[in-house]
Amino acid sequence: MTRTLNQPLGGNTMPRFGGPNTMMRLPMADSAAGLDACFLGIPMDIGTSNRSGTRLGPRQIRDESRMIRPYNMATGAAPFEALQVADIGDVPINTFDLKKSVDIITTHYDEVLSHGVIPLTLGGDHTLTWPILRAIRKRHGPVALIHVDAHSDTNEDMFGETVAHGCPFRRAWEDGCLINDKVFQIGLRGSGYSREEFDWGRRQGWTCIQAEECWHKSLTPLMQEIRAKIGDAPVYLSYDIDSLDPAFAPGTGTVEVGGLTTMQGLEIIRGCAGLNLVGGDLVEVSPPYDPAGNTAVIAANFLFEMLCALPGVPRGR
Amino acid sequence: MTRTLNQPLGGNTMPRFGGPNTMMRLPMADSAAGLDACFLGIPMDIGTSNRSGTRLGPRQIRDESRMIRPYNMATGAAPFEALQVADIGDVPINTFDLKKSVDIITTHYDEVLSHGVIPLTLGGDHTLTWPILRAIRKRHGPVALIHVDAHSDTNEDMFGETVAHGCPFRRAWEDGCLINDKVFQIGLRGSGYSREEFDWGRRQGWTCIQAEECWHKSLTPLMQEIRAKIGDAPVYLSYDIDSLDPAFAPGTGTVEVGGLTTMQGLEIIRGCAGLNLVGGDLVEVSPPYDPAGNTAVIAANFLFEMLCALPGVPRGR
Amino acid sequence: MTRTLNQPLGGNTMPRFGGPNTMMRLPMADSAAGLDACFLGIPMDIGTSNRSGTRLGPRQIRDESRMIRPYNMATGAAPFEALQVADIGDVPINTFDLKKSVDIITTHYDEVLSHGVIPLTLGGDHTLTWPILRAIRKRHGPVALIHVDAHSDTNEDMFGETVAHGCPFRRAWEDGCLINDKVFQIGLRGSGYSREEFDWGRRQGWTCIQAEECWHKSLTPLMQEIRAKIGDAPVYLSYDIDSLDPAFAPGTGTVEVGGLTTMQGLEIIRGCAGLNLVGGDLVEVSPPYDPAGNTAVIAANFLFEMLCALPGVPRGR
Amino acid sequence: MTRTLNQPLGGNTMPRFGGPNTMMRLPMADSAAGLDACFLGIPMDIGTSNRSGTRLGPRQIRDESRMIRPYNMATGAAPFEALQVADIGDVPINTFDLKKSVDIITTHYDEVLSHGVIPLTLGGDHTLTWPILRAIRKRHGPVALIHVDAHSDTNEDMFGETVAHGCPFRRAWEDGCLINDKVFQIGLRGSGYSREEFDWGRRQGWTCIQAEECWHKSLTPLMQEIRAKIGDAPVYLSYDIDSLDPAFAPGTGTVEVGGLTTMQGLEIIRGCAGLNLVGGDLVEVSPPYDPAGNTAVIAANFLFEMLCALPGVPRGR
Amino acid sequence: MTRTLNQPLGGNTMPRFGGPNTMMRLPMADSAAGLDACFLGIPMDIGTSNRSGTRLGPRQIRDESRMIRPYNMATGAAPFEALQVADIGDVPINTFDLKKSVDIITTHYDEVLSHGVIPLTLGGDHTLTWPILRAIRKRHGPVALIHVDAHSDTNEDMFGETVAHGCPFRRAWEDGCLINDKVFQIGLRGSGYSREEFDWGRRQGWTCIQAEECWHKSLTPLMQEIRAKIGDAPVYLSYDIDSLDPAFAPGTGTVEVGGLTTMQGLEIIRGCAGLNLVGGDLVEVSPPYDPAGNTAVIAANFLFEMLCALPGVPRGR
Amino acid sequence: MTRTLNQPLGGNTMPRFGGPNTMMRLPMADSAAGLDACFLGIPMDIGTSNRSGTRLGPRQIRDESRMIRPYNMATGAAPFEALQVADIGDVPINTFDLKKSVDIITTHYDEVLSHGVIPLTLGGDHTLTWPILRAIRKRHGPVALIHVDAHSDTNEDMFGETVAHGCPFRRAWEDGCLINDKVFQIGLRGSGYSREEFDWGRRQGWTCIQAEECWHKSLTPLMQEIRAKIGDAPVYLSYDIDSLDPAFAPGTGTVEVGGLTTMQGLEIIRGCAGLNLVGGDLVEVSPPYDPAGNTAVIAANFLFEMLCALPGVPRGR
Repeated sequence: MTRTLNQPLGGNTMPRFGGPNTMMRLPMADSAAGLDACFLGIPMDIGTSNRSGTRLGPRQIRDESRMIRPYNMATGAAPFEALQVADIGDVPINTFDLKKSVDIITTHYDEVLSHGVIPLTLGGDHTLTWPILRAIRKRHGPVALIHVDAHSDTNEDMFGETVAHGCPFRRAWEDGCLINDKVFQIGLRGSGYSREEFDWGRRQGWTCIQAEECWHKSLTPLMQEIRAKIGDAPVYLSYDIDSLDPAFAPGTGTVEVGGLTTMQGLEIIRGCAGLNLVGGDLVEVSPPYDPAGNTAVIAANFLFEMLCALPGVPRGR
Repeated sequence: MTRTLNQPLGGNTMPRFGGPNTMMRLPMADSAAGLDACFLGIPMDIGTSNRSGTRLGPRQIRDESRMIRPYNMATGAAPFEALQVADIGDVPINTFDLKKSVDIITTHYDEVLSHGVIPLTLGGDHTLTWPILRAIRKRHGPVALIHVDAHSDTNEDMFGETVAHGCPFRRAWEDGCLINDKVFQIGLRGSGYSREEFDWGRRQGWTCIQAEECWHKSLTPLMQEIRAKIGDAPVYLSYDIDSLDPAFAPGTGTVEVGGLTTMQGLEIIRGCAGLNLVGGDLVEVSPPYDPAGNTAVIAANFLFEMLCALPGVPRGR
Repeated sequence: MTRTLNQPLGGNTMPRFGGPNTMMRLPMADSAAGLDACFLGIPMDIGTSNRSGTRLGPRQIRDESRMIRPYNMATGAAPFEALQVADIGDVPINTFDLKKSVDIITTHYDEVLSHGVIPLTLGGDHTLTWPILRAIRKRHGPVALIHVDAHSDTNEDMFGETVAHGCPFRRAWEDGCLINDKVFQIGLRGSGYSREEFDWGRRQGWTCIQAEECWHKSLTPLMQEIRAKIGDAPVYLSYDIDSLDPAFAPGTGTVEVGGLTTMQGLEIIRGCAGLNLVGGDLVEVSPPYDPAGNTAVIAANFLFEMLCALPGVPRGR
Repeated sequence: MTRTLNQPLGGNTMPRFGGPNTMMRLPMADSAAGLDACFLGIPMDIGTSNRSGTRLGPRQIRDESRMIRPYNMATGAAPFEALQVADIGDVPINTFDLKKSVDIITTHYDEVLSHGVIPLTLGGDHTLTWPILRAIRKRHGPVALIHVDAHSDTNEDMFGETVAHGCPFRRAWEDGCLINDKVFQIGLRGSGYSREEFDWGRRQGWTCIQAEECWHKSLTPLMQEIRAKIGDAPVYLSYDIDSLDPAFAPGTGTVEVGGLTTMQGLEIIRGCAGLNLVGGDLVEVSPPYDPAGNTAVIAANFLFEMLCALPGVPRGR
Repeated sequence: MTRTLNQPLGGNTMPRFGGPNTMMRLPMADSAAGLDACFLGIPMDIGTSNRSGTRLGPRQIRDESRMIRPYNMATGAAPFEALQVADIGDVPINTFDLKKSVDIITTHYDEVLSHGVIPLTLGGDHTLTWPILRAIRKRHGPVALIHVDAHSDTNEDMFGETVAHGCPFRRAWEDGCLINDKVFQIGLRGSGYSREEFDWGRRQGWTCIQAEECWHKSLTPLMQEIRAKIGDAPVYLSYDIDSLDPAFAPGTGTVEVGGLTTMQGLEIIRGCAGLNLVGGDLVEVSPPYDPAGNTAVIAANFLFEMLCALPGVPRGR
Repeated sequence: MTRTLNQPLGGNTMPRFGGPNTMMRLPMADSAAGLDACFLGIPMDIGTSNRSGTRLGPRQIRDESRMIRPYNMATGAAPFEALQVADIGDVPINTFDLKKSVDIITTHYDEVLSHGVIPLTLGGDHTLTWPILRAIRKRHGPVALIHVDAHSDTNEDMFGETVAHGCPFRRAWEDGCLINDKVFQIGLRGSGYSREEFDWGRRQGWTCIQAEECWHKSLTPLMQEIRAKIGDAPVYLSYDIDSLDPAFAPGTGTVEVGGLTTMQGLEIIRGCAGLNLVGGDLVEVSPPYDPAGNTAVIAANFLFEMLCALPGVPRGR
């Protein structure tokens, strides 16, 4: 007995600029039942501390995903030949109350994860990773983490609040979501209040790689090391678009100069193939600061690359 | 026996910036079967003669329709209390061949109209009105026309071609789609090659109202006259967003200064209530020239106002 | 004994594009002590329901106020010849918690109002008017209200929340801040969930003037009527920039088409001269949707016009 | 013996988005010899006091003039049936020295005017009108002036300098370029240092019409009065795009809210037909603040309308 | 007997922001007669499959070429000391019919090439390279090809059409325009329908270098290899701006992330010096997606670099 | 006896998008008295030769500096633990006369430098470095120079003028401001009138490093060499943002492709630590060409990095 796998709507069936505004023009599904992986959005920006606008991230990422075709020319991955994938829409957050939204998200992911699906999330500000990781922990136990970001996002609080886009990994650590010696932060940089901002994680046993260590070179060797250290533990990949230098990804809210290149971002995500990925997110795309729409194009491609890196995806190359 | 009527997804169920990217966040339908009215898109710009970009019109109009709620505060119209409405997606035009696209459109509308539905079209460049009118004629016979536009679009040809966005009403006239003494063109202006451009229509018995006749006043009295002249004939409403002055609708391709105001546009469409509308379109929105997205907001609202003006819509006010 | 009155930094002393980024390049003051009127900002957008970005409103309004000179050429008002005015900076809201921010604002205005000053507020989303009115009531008792807006902002709740930018006037009414027969809402329009949205206020005795009643004419006669009805009661003026048609004010988040013109907005504010104004605000400017900066230019000018309309301002003309 | 008149390159010969970037895609001429009227540019912004960018005005006005066809549908004017017209390029100002540029401009116009041509100038900041009027005076003696602008531009000096974009008409007056009882300023408004700013001109006998006097009505009757007062005196028309409200013309540097509409601007220029126009300019278009390019579209059309209003142009309507 | 060589208009003669809008402010010529090399535009976007807008590419490239001075500081090339160069304007394509446009282009280049000139083309979408290569083949026989692009553009068809911007090199191959073992594709990447997309060319003997092979290094060694393989065969250089990563060239329509850098693009074109170049093009610049104009700046410079790399250009360094 | 050092306003005291628009939200000071270092702006663009707009540079740099926190995570520098720093506002240039402005600047810096402070200047066009260096020479004698730029800015004149943004280092050289064997120009590239443009400096003994020498590698080794050559001579650092490739810094006026990366820029400035820096500037940021504001973000960060590199700043790392 075979099942029919969803396919992205092709450009020879409907022009790329037409058709549904779902991720990669995939079918929309009402729930995650029957899926191997799913795309879903969290339209939120009330956790941001500088420029806002990430509430429109999921809409624009879907819009700019319209040109992505099903086969990965670089890696040979053909995810739609093996996985059942759909877009399951957005999480109905409460945009007037961040703390309530955090609980809405966990509840929503509890349900999504109950179907055994791998969720790939279109953000939304980075606050959302904490409630996702809470749900992930219930399903998978503590996980390894690959966190690509300009910021460590491990603040004890911001303006006295413990729920904010600068705090999710501190909260996730408190909640026992992470395997400390398998946490990797890549791309950290910028200014801060003290060196403690990056050292806190190091004290927990995390590997914190500052952007300066990444400049002018390929990150493929780094990913080989990371894969070796993680082994077969379940892994969550949280990709903050502001890890990229603003030349590459202008459309974000808390810009730090001197970041990663898109090429390095691709090396990181492609370097996750072979790991036991159980979920991923792409956060902090802010369309009002993305005049040509290309930050969303990167985000859409990075989410596709995450899909290509999932367990079970065949590689034709 | 009652049927359940589709409702736009409400802002208290899902934040306005989330949810599906359909027109007014209505359900998507695979066909027009069972519908009273439908929204559908024609993502086309290969018929344009100056700036392009209207191929992305349907996508952006849907996006910016997300804030429209179901009740019309000005007219009291409540279309979703009486009509079954859905978004039935886009027409798969052939973006490399304008002439083939024209035939694709007619064939598509033949099918849509076979369900007895009233189609409201999201354009796309104005070439599309001709193939729609061909299908309309097959279903309804010749129709009255209310055509709001900066241009008469009655060129014999452009660059030697008879299919282009400056020619649809000449073609529709040739094909016997129009009731000549019930054709009204509103908003004509700008420069041309000769006075013939507006006078050709007048010689066919059309009423051609130049923008200058509309300045500084309400168009409600004009619409009263038009309704009286049309009576109960079937009517098609073709609304070119460039009828508006570019102050109001910057996002279009063949800009003419000194146009109508949005308020006058609303008066025109609201003034169609009571007519036997059999179809309508909103064309020539070009998102690349609409930096704040507000031209698409107007377009979305005008399409909603067309829905509100359809026969059978109750008015609570 | 005379006091020296603050003056805006002149263009012959420092080029308009240089100098401090305060409102009208006025001196910054640490508190409202000794002032007759003050400008202050509330950088908030977490109460918005569609597009965000109003958190940057106060910064951009100040920036674009740089060209305003001290004398009003239309009305002859010369506010800096009689009033001591300064910019007293921003209210430090908690951007991660809307409900806490509302209390921060009231507390802040309690202190400001204790100095007997008239506060003119640079918003910020419209949620902020409720906490200001709470403070105003403590100082002045219930007030007359002139509320210029596309929306009535009298929702019982939004997404179940009673604190949001669609609810401030319902909350202010509950708190007894308003003199019901002296409340005037001007510019209401658009779509809604039911006619109740505008009728609720009417049932409380408010005068709700829909935008359609304003089209194509001067609002000077209307303001004459309003002044007569208000008499010498204390008045608060709350001006939502989305009252203006988006052609005039594209830079806002919950756009409704068919609105007021800037000219009408000027007539409204100038028409407040002679009233006993005790405060005013200009809200909902969202810089990311204002590509040329001109929405902020309007906002800055409207705030200057409010200053010109205050009691005690001499008129040279 | 007949001469062949230049014609704009037609859209059926070359697509509107191709072809030369001259004004209206007219032929370029090396000098004004043999012409009846000419377009020429002055790429200057070093006389501006707030936002700059007008140096690129002539380039963008030419670019956006590409859609203008030879016949005026509103007035019936057909300028290319009677006048020899060309684009004669730009004046090579010295962009590092405003005072030298002013002399370069006068010298350049001395030469241009020596051919008996009517120059229509694409600006550039308003400083340029003074040196043009100096050359005009040599050729025609003092002239009547129709000056459409938000500002009177009659400052004695700015920052101590007598050459700046706020001073040209004071300088022209000093130089005896103007017939004082035939000077009309239309659209004045905004804030100033004192009422003197508009009254100075009035004391010289000028007619200064503030924008508020123009709101909500047609300016056609005003132009009838002006034509009557001017009679057959030579007239210069100086049109500052900032006379228009920024809703209509966002792309300018010293924005004043509450201005004229484009429709009123058209009424003013069309109302000049019948006068003895000896020159005209369109100034202060600043492309960096004109994201959709439509301010330049207005400017191009207004220059075309000036051409249509020149003596000797036949009217077919 | 000597001839006078055309020179770009210098910045000390006319400010950079003034003067003609020709390529590098060179003289415009009516035909290619007497020229060694020429610039010409093909304003076309009806062959594009995602975002349109390339129809305005030639206009914007010319505009942004205004700052290029005649001497190449990096390579020492001084093309205007040896070659007669002019801008010969645009090809009058039929914007309503792609297939007819293709024939118009070939006919136009037949005439241009009859003068023995080397054409450097400003695109326009990539469809145009096929008709150019057809004309090139008639003049020079099959040619070597250096094709820099994100896409192989060797589709058998798109939406059933054989003429589209994804097909030109398949068509050129069918027409015998190419020397198969001297075809080099550089920069290929992204997603596709199958690995066949890049392998088809390889099976014809082409060298297809994916972007990933280029990351993090100089391409100067690659060009040395390519020059060795091509020898003295005639070479055509087709440069698609989307070969560059969108960080460098945002202004294009079919964006693929992870591309070449501008520095690598310069290395490629400079690495063509010494080859027997017989023509070149720069395609797919889409101004509406290029908010700062810098994609056009790159395009203009790359075209200048092509000119510098032509046979016969002296090198002073 | 200790003094209290100024601190930037923290994000936990006032949201990043609120608070004063000073550099890094530092206190504003009326003069440089008592300061160790200061930020000050020169809002000037009348020395530019292509696109203007740098007059708004200081305003936008300050605005986008709002997110910079006090500690440098890469270098461990903590400047506010040792230096008294403030923002001392703008220099009141005469925007209508470049030559007078140059003298205003020197006079202003004479006063600033009299307090023994190190000035870090927010530009403004590059003309400003000459008058600053004149003041620096009076205080410190001739200085070493690290000049990062796409252009050598050593023109004898431009359009016959010796004061322009292409000439400051020729003028400074004439005035004896520079130690010739300690002058380093980094990032030179583009097109010119002859090779003389870069060779003139070399003939004076300057080290002129073209951008091509910098591609694809770290500049840390270069800075080590430069530090060795400069030794303990006083050094001035002049950083033109157009040294960066336009992918990184789109918001500037005289764009040259193929430039430095932001990472290299950081390496250069950080590589100045240990030198005897006596002043620095960051010039040529043009906000109208910086749609997302990120060029200003870079500029703000580079100025912070200059502060971090000053003598006496402690390093915690």
